[in-house]
Amino acid sequence: MSRFQPEDLSAAEIARQQELYGPFTQAVRELVDATLRTTLEGDVIGEAQAQVEAVTARLREQQIEGAYGVHYSHEGRGRAWGNAVIGLRNAIAPPLSITTDADQRAVADFHLGAVYEGPPGLVHGGVVSLVLDQILGHAVGASGRPGMTGTLTIVYRQGTPLGGLRAEAWIDRSAGVKTFAKGHIIGPDGVTAEAEGVFVLPRWARSLTDAPDIGN
Amino acid sequence: MSRFQPEDLSAAEIARQQELYGPFTQAVRELVDATLRTTLEGDVIGEAQAQVEAVTARLREQQIEGAYGVHYSHEGRGRAWGNAVIGLRNAIAPPLSITTDADQRAVADFHLGAVYEGPPGLVHGGVVSLVLDQILGHAVGASGRPGMTGTLTIVYRQGTPLGGLRAEAWIDRSAGVKTFAKGHIIGPDGVTAEAEGVFVLPRWARSLTDAPDIGN
Repeated sequence: MSRFQPEDLSAAEIARQQELYGPFTQAVRELVDATLRTTLEGDVIGEAQAQVEAVTARLREQQIEGAYGVHYSHEGRGRAWGNAVIGLRNAIAPPLSITTDADQRAVADFHLGAVYEGPPGLVHGGVVSLVLDQILGHAVGASGRPGMTGTLTIVYRQGTPLGGLRAEAWIDRSAGVKTFAKGHIIGPDGVTAEAEGVFVLPRWARSLTDAPDIGN
Repeated sequence: MSRFQPEDLSAAEIARQQELYGPFTQAVRELVDATLRTTLEGDVIGEAQAQVEAVTARLREQQIEGAYGVHYSHEGRGRAWGNAVIGLRNAIAPPLSITTDADQRAVADFHLGAVYEGPPGLVHGGVVSLVLDQILGHAVGASGRPGMTGTLTIVYRQGTPLGGLRAEAWIDRSAGVKTFAKGHIIGPDGVTAEAEGVFVLPRWARSLTDAPDIGN
C-alpha cells in the first residue's frame, strides 16, 4: 500500500469504504466543533477526554505508518482522502467537494463553521488562501496540466463571513511548464477574496503530459 | 460573553481553563489523526462513531452560540482560543505557539502531521499559506500596528515535508495604514516558502493607534 502504487480496489469497494469512513469522519468533525464551543467544565471535560483517548487507542491498534498520501486505483483514479481541504477521511477538511462545470471552471459550495475562524466572526485569512490554493490546483489538474503551486497571491477585498460560501477557479493561460490560474471566494455580499496562482509541472511529470498551451 | 466585551477573568482563572481545555483539545487532535490513519474496519468504526457522537452530544448540552471570537480580559490580553492556527481549544490548529524575539521577529517551531498533507508526504500548499498568514499577522500585531491581511503572496521554493518546521516573520516597512511584513517557513533542507503580506489597519481601529511609520 505504498503511496504511489495502485491498489486493486473495485468501484464497489471504494464506495463501501466511503460509506464507512465518511460518516465516521463527519462525526469527528462535529466533535471538533463541540470541543471548541462547549462551556461545560471540570469532570465532564475529564470524562470526555478519557472517552476520546479510549477511541483513539482502539483506532491506533492498526493504522498506516505516516501520512495517507494519494491512493490510486488501477483505473488511475486518485483518492486524496487525507487531503487537508477535500479529504473524506480528514476531519480538519471542511471538506470541499469540487466539481468541474461545462466551462472547465472548478466550483465548490461549502460551509465554514467556528473552527475556521480568524478575526471574530470571519474566516481566517489563511483558511481563505488554503481553500483558494486547493480549488486553483483543481482547475489546473482538470485542464490536463497538473502542477505544484509555484506562486500564490491572494487579494482580500472584504472579510469573509463564517457560513455558506462558494469558491470558483479557472485557467487564465499557460506557457510551457507554467499554468496560470485565477479564482475567488464569494460570500453573501459578493467576492471576498481573489487569487492568482502559478502552477509548475514537476520535473518527473513533464514526460507524461503533452497538453498544448492554453490562451496563447 | 459577547465577542468584544472584556470578561472579568483573573490570570489564575485563565490558567485553570488552559489546564482543563488544553489537554482535552490535544486528545481530540490525536483522534483526528487516528481517524485518518486507522485501517480498522466495520463494527470497530461503527462503535467508535457511536462513542464520538455520545461525547459530542454531551458537550453540546451547554455551548456558546456561533463562533468563539476573541475573548479579552480586563487587562486587554486577548485569548484567540478558537483561532484556526493558534487556538488552544481548536483541534484543527496544530497549534502554533508564536513568540516575539529580541529583534521583534515572530518565531514558531511546530510539527505538522498527516492531517496537514497535500501532495504525498508534503504539507498542503494552502496550509503553508495558512501558517504564514498567521505568523505575518502576529509580527504586524507585535509592532503595535495591527491590521487585517490586504494582500498575501506566497512563493513556493520547494515542497515542505511533513514533520518539524519553523516559521519566522518580521516587519519590512510601513506606510500610513499599511504595514508590509515578510516571512518564511524553514524545513530540514532550508527555506521552503517565502511570504510577503500587506496588512491594512481597519477603519475602526485607526484612532486607537499612533504608532509611527517603520522603515521610512
